[in-house]
Amino acid sequence: MSSGDGFRPLDEKFLVEYLKATPSLAAKLGNQFDKLEIKEVGDGNLNFVYIVISPSGSLVIKQALPYIRCIGESWPMTKERAYFEATTLQEERRLCPEHVPEVYHFDRTMCLIGMRYIEPPHIILRKGLIAGIEYPLLAEHISEFMARTLFYTSLLYLTTTEHKSAVAKYCANVELCRLTEQVVFSDPYKVSEYNHWTSPYLDADAESVREDNILKLEVAELKSKFCERAQALIHGDLHTGSVMVTSDSTQVIDPEFSFYGPMGFDIGAFIGNLILAYFAQDGHAEGADRKVYKVWILKTISETWNLFYKKFTALWDEHKDGPGEAYLPEIYNNPDLQLLVRQKYMEDIFHDSLGFGAAKMIRRIVGVAHVEDFESIKDESKRAECERKALTLAKTLLKERTKFKSIGEVVSAIEKIDA
Amino acid sequence: MSSGDGFRPLDEKFLVEYLKATPSLAAKLGNQFDKLEIKEVGDGNLNFVYIVISPSGSLVIKQALPYIRCIGESWPMTKERAYFEATTLQEERRLCPEHVPEVYHFDRTMCLIGMRYIEPPHIILRKGLIAGIEYPLLAEHISEFMARTLFYTSLLYLTTTEHKSAVAKYCANVELCRLTEQVVFSDPYKVSEYNHWTSPYLDADAESVREDNILKLEVAELKSKFCERAQALIHGDLHTGSVMVTSDSTQVIDPEFSFYGPMGFDIGAFIGNLILAYFAQDGHAEGADRKVYKVWILKTISETWNLFYKKFTALWDEHKDGPGEAYLPEIYNNPDLQLLVRQKYMEDIFHDSLGFGAAKMIRRIVGVAHVEDFESIKDESKRAECERKALTLAKTLLKERTKFKSIGEVVSAIEKIDA
Repeated sequence: MSSGDGFRPLDEKFLVEYLKATPSLAAKLGNQFDKLEIKEVGDGNLNFVYIVISPSGSLVIKQALPYIRCIGESWPMTKERAYFEATTLQEERRLCPEHVPEVYHFDRTMCLIGMRYIEPPHIILRKGLIAGIEYPLLAEHISEFMARTLFYTSLLYLTTTEHKSAVAKYCANVELCRLTEQVVFSDPYKVSEYNHWTSPYLDADAESVREDNILKLEVAELKSKFCERAQALIHGDLHTGSVMVTSDSTQVIDPEFSFYGPMGFDIGAFIGNLILAYFAQDGHAEGADRKVYKVWILKTISETWNLFYKKFTALWDEHKDGPGEAYLPEIYNNPDLQLLVRQKYMEDIFHDSLGFGAAKMIRRIVGVAHVEDFESIKDESKRAECERKALTLAKTLLKERTKFKSIGEVVSAIEKIDA
Repeated sequence: MSSGDGFRPLDEKFLVEYLKATPSLAAKLGNQFDKLEIKEVGDGNLNFVYIVISPSGSLVIKQALPYIRCIGESWPMTKERAYFEATTLQEERRLCPEHVPEVYHFDRTMCLIGMRYIEPPHIILRKGLIAGIEYPLLAEHISEFMARTLFYTSLLYLTTTEHKSAVAKYCANVELCRLTEQVVFSDPYKVSEYNHWTSPYLDADAESVREDNILKLEVAELKSKFCERAQALIHGDLHTGSVMVTSDSTQVIDPEFSFYGPMGFDIGAFIGNLILAYFAQDGHAEGADRKVYKVWILKTISETWNLFYKKFTALWDEHKDGPGEAYLPEIYNNPDLQLLVRQKYMEDIFHDSLGFGAAKMIRRIVGVAHVEDFESIKDESKRAECERKALTLAKTLLKERTKFKSIGEVVSAIEKIDA
């Protein structure tokens, strides 16, 4: 099956031919093709993901397919997303090499990325959170990733010439943005065939989301920001399923939704998904065995924001006389003013993060795509109880985000709902 | 003098050859070249502007030159701006034919636009305001222009696919955006060789602008919006020098600074320049002869905003079930919510307009490029007095813009300062 544009979906036989014919990939396998171990681990509906291991090396081949299949429905989706995924992986790795896997090879025609195999014991963070595993360096690492990738692609570091050129390039990733617009900012707030929830338990809750005028007013403002505000190169899908971890390594993958958008969308995605993980714990707990773990999640939420704040503002300090054109040194050259400017800037990111994080929580409970944190809770009434707490918090965060002054107040709000 | 890329600056002889060789232009002149009347009316430093009149027709030829000359300084400036000027003129004319001149011909290599000659008695609005001429239809017309061009290029009417594609195209007009960033948002707030003001009268005032932390904090927020927020296709330079008028015609020209930016930048430019015209009146007045005229300017300021509000929201109503993706009808389908959404949206535009308008006033008093309204006041102490009132108002508007609830309150603030 070839589509005439040179694209051809992989199968195992073709994959081996491809590897042999591609020096940068062959080299990673030590040019040994006799004892290749090949495993397809993608869901097969969205992307092919092949793990390839030879006696002297390994790699992952990821190929974008021209559709996503969703709830039995066929949903066409540009395979050009592979171009943005590869481009952003390379850019993010340049900015934060410790937490982004290396890209070995990109083939735009084949929509194919050859990259580092993020080897065991790395697992998807979401699975670790469900299993109750603590990652003592997670907040440190993810805040480093966010601070570096967001700072260096914002006007705090770039000239407006560099920034506008990058913005223009990523405008072409519009189809993926549109998918986010639909599933995050639209579908949960209307009757949609794609929506589902833990029914009948949450029927009234889902309806109340669709009928909450203030919530819909606020989500519209966030959607406008998402569509109009090119603040920095954002990952665009930074939930706990896009992060692979061990106790001492954190690797961010899958930036196919990346574009120039509001920073809070990334920070909010990560924190929002940690909050979902928190509220799911009671569903996984036997007796009180997750009590300590829940405290660790709350600590990680606080530290993620606080370390992000510290690292981001440190980068700002370091580069305040640099090329960035948002705050020219000749104008913003006094300490009082710098403090004012920074407080306002960081407060805006914080409130955006709470808003976007809340929107991402809501869509995981009443929208099309749910999270394993909740889905793996077999007892539906128990699951609904966990989800309802998360939904209640999310609604408050979205509607009253500007009243929160610190991440500590957010943690208190979580604890209060959980009490 | 030819630059190797096919570009060649016009002179009269070459112009005639060019007209003869270009059917769309020759036709406009009835193919009569014997009795051509040709007049160069551009300042020659930024663009050539030739008026060409034959016995049976007329047109204007505008050619962008690859620099602007400013205060004896040579300042290179991309001649590609002609492409954006022509493109935007055509788009604006499509959206609002009554108030935008027709483009007959565009030559990208020559950076040359052939367009309608906006004939006498049309004059530049700024000159009419200095002369004390009332334009009873001005607010009606300019609000129509703003409402239509801004509404139809926003996400209230466009899909995000159309919007992102247009945003990407206009990202290439970055050099002109950078000029605005410098002269509007930066230079007035720092010591710059380009700045000047009515010295020594306003020395302390200019210094106080450079040392006002709150003002600089607020102007940074506006600059961020200007650089990051692609809300609609804005004209980008909608002051009273970009509008030609008679008592019953209003024509908007010169959109070379156009790009996808915040709507308030256009609305603010127009209203801010009307406020400058207002405060300049006492410098032109002999005795109290401008009292009635000042009342007319204030009325025009009010009507411009109020009619814009009315027309813009009417377009929104008309197209609320249309293609625009900001507020999907399935979600925003109830009257209470529609009212809430509209109030918030319009309030944001209003506050942005006041902020941008104020920034544009400030830069005309202490920045590089001043306005004839004030410059034509020969008595420097009188001029300084007029300028100081305008500057005082502008600082209040910029710092406290979100406290203003209506255009009436803005008019009251103007009157109070003028009392």
